[in-house]
This record gives sequence, structure tokens and C-alpha cells, in this order.
Amino acid sequence: MWQYQPPLRDIRFVIEELLNLPAQWAQMPAFAEVDAATARQVVEEAGKFAADVLAPLNAVGDLEGCTLKDGAVTTPRGFREAYQAFVQAGWPALACDPAVGGQGLSQSLNAVLHEMLNSANHAWTMYPGLLPGAYESLLAHGTPALREQYLPKVVSGEWLSTMCLTEAHAGSDLGLLKTRAAPQADGSFRVRGTKIFISGGEHDLTDNIVHMVLARIADAPAGTRGLSLFLVPKVMPDGTRNALRCDGVEKKMGIKGSATCVMSFEGATGWLVGEANRGLAAMFVMMNAARLHVALQGVGHAESAYQNSLRHAQERLQMRAPVRDAARQGHEADPIVLHPAVRHNLLRQRALLEGGRLLAYETAHLLDVAERHPDDAVRHTAHDEVSLLTPICKAFLTDNGNASAQAAQQVYGGHGYIHEVGVEQCVRDSRIARIYEGTNEIQAIDLLVRKVIADGGVKLGRLIARLQRELPGSDLAARVQPWLANWQQVTQQIVQQAAQDAELPYRVADDYLRLAGLLLLAHGWVRAEAIAAVHTSPFHAAKRETAQYYLDYLLPEASLCLARIRAGQNPLPQLSPASA
Amino acid sequence: MWQYQPPLRDIRFVIEELLNLPAQWAQMPAFAEVDAATARQVVEEAGKFAADVLAPLNAVGDLEGCTLKDGAVTTPRGFREAYQAFVQAGWPALACDPAVGGQGLSQSLNAVLHEMLNSANHAWTMYPGLLPGAYESLLAHGTPALREQYLPKVVSGEWLSTMCLTEAHAGSDLGLLKTRAAPQADGSFRVRGTKIFISGGEHDLTDNIVHMVLARIADAPAGTRGLSLFLVPKVMPDGTRNALRCDGVEKKMGIKGSATCVMSFEGATGWLVGEANRGLAAMFVMMNAARLHVALQGVGHAESAYQNSLRHAQERLQMRAPVRDAARQGHEADPIVLHPAVRHNLLRQRALLEGGRLLAYETAHLLDVAERHPDDAVRHTAHDEVSLLTPICKAFLTDNGNASAQAAQQVYGGHGYIHEVGVEQCVRDSRIARIYEGTNEIQAIDLLVRKVIADGGVKLGRLIARLQRELPGSDLAARVQPWLANWQQVTQQIVQQAAQDAELPYRVADDYLRLAGLLLLAHGWVRAEAIAAVHTSPFHAAKRETAQYYLDYLLPEASLCLARIRAGQNPLPQLSPASA
Repeated sequence: MWQYQPPLRDIRFVIEELLNLPAQWAQMPAFAEVDAATARQVVEEAGKFAADVLAPLNAVGDLEGCTLKDGAVTTPRGFREAYQAFVQAGWPALACDPAVGGQGLSQSLNAVLHEMLNSANHAWTMYPGLLPGAYESLLAHGTPALREQYLPKVVSGEWLSTMCLTEAHAGSDLGLLKTRAAPQADGSFRVRGTKIFISGGEHDLTDNIVHMVLARIADAPAGTRGLSLFLVPKVMPDGTRNALRCDGVEKKMGIKGSATCVMSFEGATGWLVGEANRGLAAMFVMMNAARLHVALQGVGHAESAYQNSLRHAQERLQMRAPVRDAARQGHEADPIVLHPAVRHNLLRQRALLEGGRLLAYETAHLLDVAERHPDDAVRHTAHDEVSLLTPICKAFLTDNGNASAQAAQQVYGGHGYIHEVGVEQCVRDSRIARIYEGTNEIQAIDLLVRKVIADGGVKLGRLIARLQRELPGSDLAARVQPWLANWQQVTQQIVQQAAQDAELPYRVADDYLRLAGLLLLAHGWVRAEAIAAVHTSPFHAAKRETAQYYLDYLLPEASLCLARIRAGQNPLPQLSPASA
Repeated sequence: MWQYQPPLRDIRFVIEELLNLPAQWAQMPAFAEVDAATARQVVEEAGKFAADVLAPLNAVGDLEGCTLKDGAVTTPRGFREAYQAFVQAGWPALACDPAVGGQGLSQSLNAVLHEMLNSANHAWTMYPGLLPGAYESLLAHGTPALREQYLPKVVSGEWLSTMCLTEAHAGSDLGLLKTRAAPQADGSFRVRGTKIFISGGEHDLTDNIVHMVLARIADAPAGTRGLSLFLVPKVMPDGTRNALRCDGVEKKMGIKGSATCVMSFEGATGWLVGEANRGLAAMFVMMNAARLHVALQGVGHAESAYQNSLRHAQERLQMRAPVRDAARQGHEADPIVLHPAVRHNLLRQRALLEGGRLLAYETAHLLDVAERHPDDAVRHTAHDEVSLLTPICKAFLTDNGNASAQAAQQVYGGHGYIHEVGVEQCVRDSRIARIYEGTNEIQAIDLLVRKVIADGGVKLGRLIARLQRELPGSDLAARVQPWLANWQQVTQQIVQQAAQDAELPYRVADDYLRLAGLLLLAHGWVRAEAIAAVHTSPFHAAKRETAQYYLDYLLPEASLCLARIRAGQNPLPQLSPASA
């Protein structure tokens, strides 16, 4: 049935052979002591935790779900014990600052950890998954008192946290939020309102829960410029319960072990984090890291989908392959992995999975560079690249992760539709990552409108120039090089046309993001092929084959994206009730 | 929440304006009495049954599922009563021969009925969905005694039926089946074996269930040439129970109201249908109709996905559209249908849905022509076209139906992940249609290897020539015309190359089928646009817009298919354990 083997060799390929991270870390004092051996050890231990502790709870969580009774949420059997083990092993603190109790390891290693946790058990990983958000915003914007009181428990994982943004009428559009915060004489606020879709809003994993709540102070401006961020604990510093409660747990398509709560704040006491009316800015601190973690859910699902469907395809005997080895002539059926349709399915999964892993880890590393590199200019460039790459990672890799899960389901045939086989849970669980943390359509607008067009395409041009410089001298690279030029050209066209036609970027944004993702992965595969070219192992041969497959079968979709972007120069029909 | 409004206007557009079926029926004595008014009445009544009786049971069926206790299966609340109403209204007999109690209406009208039943409640429709299979095979191959005893009850729907093919080790590959049948002195057989994934294998809707079972008579040849088809009733003619039982009901991803059973035949009494060892031929009689009904599940889900997500998009206010009417300047947010990403989503759904409906109805009509037209040559041509179009309908329309459900889910944002909204059930339910009745990968092999290459592309060439002849004189037609020539050309290349490279057709089959589907829909939209061009109503204006959208945004995928078919001329990597 559904299994998880940590893909240690593939992770090493990215960290050591492709990105050469140990050498990169050596240039940053914060990570100078992390060598390849330490990184390997961290990755291996994380893999053990994911495979041994979390994977066995994945199906359990789906079957049991979470139950709400008298305001208390019970998580599935084993979830609490797994979380205690997670905290005891120090995993929550992995990438946190040693000054506040963290281990000070890199975001790239944290990305590896989160990929593996998500491969093993996405629903469980939702609970500690929001920890970096509270950590980052408190670290950057919390008052000394709040930091002293909450940061150590958040870093250690003793207390979990939430991000309370969405309301029933306000999802993609936070400007419509209605939750109110009224100032009190002691400097605290009373928060009133109802939030929905709050992951981990209530549960039995920790004694306290630190809610980070977006709300509006009386007389604040309308829209997003009137939002402030508040820390609202479940349990007050004096041990009493705060005036908030869980009013419901959603029945969802997937990640059923994760409690998705309706939270009522009924005059709950909270404290401002950052400046009044600057809540969105404080919240956005969390966003890049949070969106990258969602991208890693895509990679995590793609990994478990691929490894399970590959194993099934190697074991399942069905029909004779159109071309058979002499050795198999006597058998009445062949492993389905010998059938070309199944090979296409698996090669496509592999190319998107491994290319996506490289893109996600590299973006996580750029987060490190943006924060920790001693050279200002290097930090600045990395920051710009992260801002471009994050929405691409989030949308492209979660679309691909869900597509891989569906492809894997197809490999299983009818068995793939049966719950106990596990792949249908992977399809359901992976689906949410395309929606939350900003739908993938919102990511596309973020990329094209807010990041690319906002500066006339300057930052994007620099990114493409860097990609051009890093292309190796190879036949495959020669095929990708003109595509990078196309990307640059179509970007300039969009920037120019947007000045006359304000809707145009919104019409082409989805295809633009997909184009960007396809070209970034092509670039990654060209680099992987060049590195694999000097090795003769079967492992490296498979990398060369996959690179070739990517360029032959996946890169052509870039032409389709370009054709649609061209079509997008014309207006789109309306869908008013009369014509629909 | 999730609703279903029968799309009567759109169905009329296809039946009357596009296909002009009443005039076509007039040419066939069997249907000469069916005029447009009669057809409208049938469609409207069918729509009422689907919307009023079945749609309210859709969510109930998903929540309750089926339960097995002491060998008896209980279907969800209301399913039995709905089935009784279905039988009383005479719907099972709609397209059956009047000589055996049927109403003698066309397969095209039966297709409309089944589209609407599936839109409203796919799980429920599984029970009567297999009726045509038993009907067709008994009618064509049953002995007079079997026909007399079983056909009237099957036609009336008093007894439901199953198709018992799959075994645990034999799904796509029926040649591996192990169920045995031993001849008895009285001419009957004793059937022993275990079948899995048997839809409606046991239930409480009818007093008897007629199982059509593939099994192997002792000393029969290995493989598919040793399979025979047996009629094995749950209740024997003398009222006693036959030696068979339901050993389990699968817990599935979706269509939970449909009982998917493990069936044990323990020396059950059965009667041969057709000749010994010719069971697959007898079974294949059911296949074209059954595959077309699965295609209609795709259309049915696409319809409910589209109409619900469109309504949601017109009602849900979120963010300001990039371009706003003066009338909306004072509002803080716009209906999301005004956002280009949502319009793309809905236009794509609409273009695939309505184009798919035309293709499915037209193929159903060709089934009628193939069986009922007085002219031999016309019948023969229609039969050839049905054999080509059926696998395309099955694979292309179920892929599109599931994709539409997912697109609709994206329109709902986070709400789309919540069970009570209904769209996530549509995603789960529609997923199975890509797998069962021959996976979509098997359909692609059926199309390219067994249908197109088998006669050197002759039949396919005739189909393309007919499509070319039927192109209207319009700007859009001029864009599609060269694509039909491309299709013909790439077909000839594949036919020639397959003679040297036996694996090649298997490497390109999926992209070939997708190409065919895309071009058939392009052809359909060009015809729709030409017909709509002479009308000024908003309804017809929307058809012209959608045709334009299809050619601008969906047809370009045909280039991607061609690029992949070209890439398929080279061998594919193996995925042996060492390299994977």
C-alpha cells in the first residue's frame, strides 16, 4: 500500500551536486559551520521522522478526521504523540535564530524537512506549518514584551500558532475584513469577529495556541490600509481562557486530520504586532516563507505520488508490452512500467517532481542569501529574485503536485479509486495547495502585475540575464537559450501594452506564470544534465534521460503559453447572466 | 449550494439547430414518428426527473454511501424510491426495441437523458447505467429462452443488471481472467470465481439482479479467446437464491452511493450467452454504448460544474475588477465573474462542455444511423465513424469533465474544498470516468492501434474527408481546415512508421487521441458559429463568442499534441528499478 521512502539520494543531488550549498553556506557567517556531513545528517534524521513517525498516521488522519465537542477539538489518534516527538527532537526550531532558541540552520534545509513532512503526512504538517509565520512576524514586528513572552515557546514548538485572515465574505480580498479591535486602557485590544478556514484554530496538540489575527481598529481607513495585526492567545498569561472559541470544524475534501476551524473572537484580548493599520505589511513578512512552504507541499505530494506509482507499475502485471525482451517471451503479461503510456506518465511525473524540487530548494536558499549574505548587493539581488520566484513556486509546483497525484492515480487504474490504496487521498490532500495561501490565479497576478510590471520588468530582466549566464555549453542548453530570450521579449511586450490596456496583464497572467515555471524547470534540467554528463552511474544516466524527456515533451507547452498570451491581446467575452 | 437546472435551451440548440435530428429521424422508419415537439417533451420530462428527483439525493448518497450487512446492501436514503419512480415513468425502456417492450426512441435522446441523470446524480445513475449492456448482449446473443425470461424485465427495469469482468489480477487485461464455468447435464453451467469492482453487484433497488459474467470453460484456450459470457441471476427462476454473494463494498473516492462490490460466485448456476469462447465478442456489443454513456458522465459533470461555478462567480463579490463599468465605481468589490482569470476559467469550461455535448450527441446519433438507417452504405459508414469516435468521446470528454470540475472548484476558492458546497464531490465523482470502462490510455490505444492503423488509416481518412466537406465557408473554418489536413498527414506518417517501429503508436497514442478530440471540437464550434451567425439573440451571440474563444485559446493545444507526437518518434527511457 501507500509508503514513503525519503528520497535521500535525490535530495543530495540537489543540495550537493546541483546547488553546491555547503560551499554557498561557507560564504555566510550564519551558516559557516554547516558542512555537507552535518546537512546530510539533518536530512537523514528528518527523513526518519517523516517515514517512521508521520507516514503511518497519514491514512489514520484521513479516516478519523478531527472532532469538535464542547469547544475542544480532538485530533486523530497518534497526532499528539507525533507532535511531542517533533518538539522533543527540536525540529520546530530548525531554521530559527539561535538568539531566541533556534538552531540557526538554513531555509534550504528547512525546505527539505518540510518537503519530507508533507510527503509523509500533509494534514499533520499543517499544525507546525504555520509556526514560521508567527515566528517571523513576531521577530520582525513584536514589542520586546511580546517577543519575550511568546517567541521562545513558538520557537520550541511548545505553543502552536495560527494565521487568522479569512472571513466568510473576504478570502482573496482582505480589504473586506470586518473583524474589529477596540483599544483598552492597558494598551491591549478587544477583538471581535468571526474568522473561517483557520488551520489549527483549535486542537489538542499544545496547551496554548497563539492566534495572529488581522482586524480593523475603529476609524481605521477602509480596505487593506486599515488592517492591523494582533496576537491573541487562547490562554492568557494568567492562565485564564481568552474570550475566543472554535465554533465549527469544516468537513473537507482532504487534509482531514488538520482541524480547519471557524473561530469566534468575542471581545478577546489581543496585542498589536507592528504599527496600527500596517497589519498587512506585518503579515506579508510571513507570506514568502508561507508560500514557499505551500510549494513544498506540491513537491512533497509529487514525491509520494511518483515513488508509489512507480513501484506499483514495476510490480503490476497486465498485458504484453508492444516490444518485449527475449527474457519475457514466456510470460503471459508484463509489468505495466513497460507500457509506453505508463512510462510517459511516470517520466512526466519525474521531470516535474525533480525539476520542482530544485526550483523550491534554490528559492529557499535565495531566502537565506537575501537575509544572511554579508554582501549588500548580493542580498538585494537575492531578495528581488525571491519576490519573483515565490509566486511561481507556489502556483506552478502545487499545480504540478496535484497533477502528479492524479497521474499516479491513473497508473493504479481502478485500484486507484479505492481508499485503502492511498493514492486517492494524495489527490484529495494535494488539491488544497492550489487554493489556499492565495489561489494560484492570485499568485499569477502577484507575479505579473505586482512584481514584473511594477518596475517595468527590470528585476525580471536581471533574473533572466542570470539564467542566461548560468546556462552550460551543451546541446540542451542551446535549445533553452532562445526560450529565455522569448521570455524576456514577451515580458517587454506585456509591459508596454499594459500601459494602454490595464486589463491585459490580468488576461495573460496565468499563462505567463506557467511559461515562467516551464522555462525555470527547463533551465534546471539543462544544468542537471550538464552535471550528470560527467558521471556514468545509472543514477546520473536517469538524470540525463529525464532532462531529455523534459525538453522533448514538457518544454513544448511553453509554445502553448505563448500562443495564449498572444491571444490575450484581444478582449475577453463577458459572462453576464444573459449571455451565459 | 449545488444545484441542477436542465440546460434545455442548449440541448435544443444541438438537437434542432446543429444536428437537425428531427429531419434525420424522418429518414429512418424506426424513428419516423418522432418529431421536434415529441423530442422536446421527452427532454423536458427527463430534465424534471433529473432535477426534481435525483439532484436532491446527490449529496445524501455521498454522505451515506452503501452499507453491507449479512450479504445485503442498503443504498442511500431515497435511492430506492427514486428508482421506482424511474421505472414507473418508463425511462429504462426509452431506447429499447418496441418488440421487447421498449419505447423505440433514438440513442441520441437516450444520450440526452443520461447526460442529465449524470449531471444530477452520477452515483445513482450507475444502477440503471448498465442496463443497456445486458439488454444489447441478450438481444443480440441470448437464446430464445433466455430472451423470453429476462429481456422484458431488463427492458422495464424491474430487474437491474451488472457486467462482471474485472478480477483482482485482471483489469485492463481480461485475458488473465480465472473465473471458471463447468457445463452441467441440463445445459447450464456452474460458475466459480471472484469478481471485483462490480457496480451494482448487490443492492436493494430491485428484487433480482442479472449478472453478465465473463468466465472460462474448462479446457478453453488461454487469453481472451477462451472467455465465454454467462447470464447468472441473483434469484433463480424457481425463486431460490443462486450460489453467489456480495463479499464486500469498496470504500471509494467518489460515487459513494453506487455499490461497488466484490462478488463471489460459488458454483452459481449460469447460462451461456452467445457461443462458447466468444464471450468477449458478446461483451463488446455492450462496449460502444457503454463507453458513450461514460462519455456522457463527463458531459454531465461538466454541465453541473459549469452552471454552478458560473452562478457562484456572478454572485460572489471579491476585489475590484481591473476594468470597471461606471455603474460599479461606488462598490467596494465586484462579482468575480468580472475578473479575467475567472472568465478564462468559465469560458474554457463552456467551450469544452458545449463542444463535448455536440460530439457526444452526434456520436449517439451515428449509433442510430448505424443500426437503423435504411441505406446499407450509410449504415456502414456510420458504423465506421462510431468505432472511431467512441474511444475519443470516452477519453476526451471524461478528461474534460474532470478538468471542468476542478476548474469549477478553483472558482469557489477555499469554499470549494468544503464538502457542503458540493463542487468537491463533483471532482471526486467525475474522476472515475477517466478510469473505468477501459482507462483513457486504453481508449487511446483502441483508437490508434485497433481502429486507425488496423486498416491503414482508411476509415479515419474518410471521417476527415467528411469533416472537410461539412466545413462552412467562414473565417473560423479557414483556420480549422489546415488542421484537418495536418491530422490526415500525421495519421499517414504514423501508419507508415508503425510498420517499422511496432512501439511507436503506443508512444504517441494519448497525444493522438487528444489531438483528434481537440480538432473534432474545433469542427463543432465552427459549425455552431456558422449557425449562430444568422441570429441576433444573446444566446447565439454567446455561441459565436465561445467559438472564437475555442479557436483562440483551446485549439492551440493541438500544436502541443503534434509536437509530442513528433517527439514520440524516438524511443522512451525505461524505468527499471536501477534508473528510477
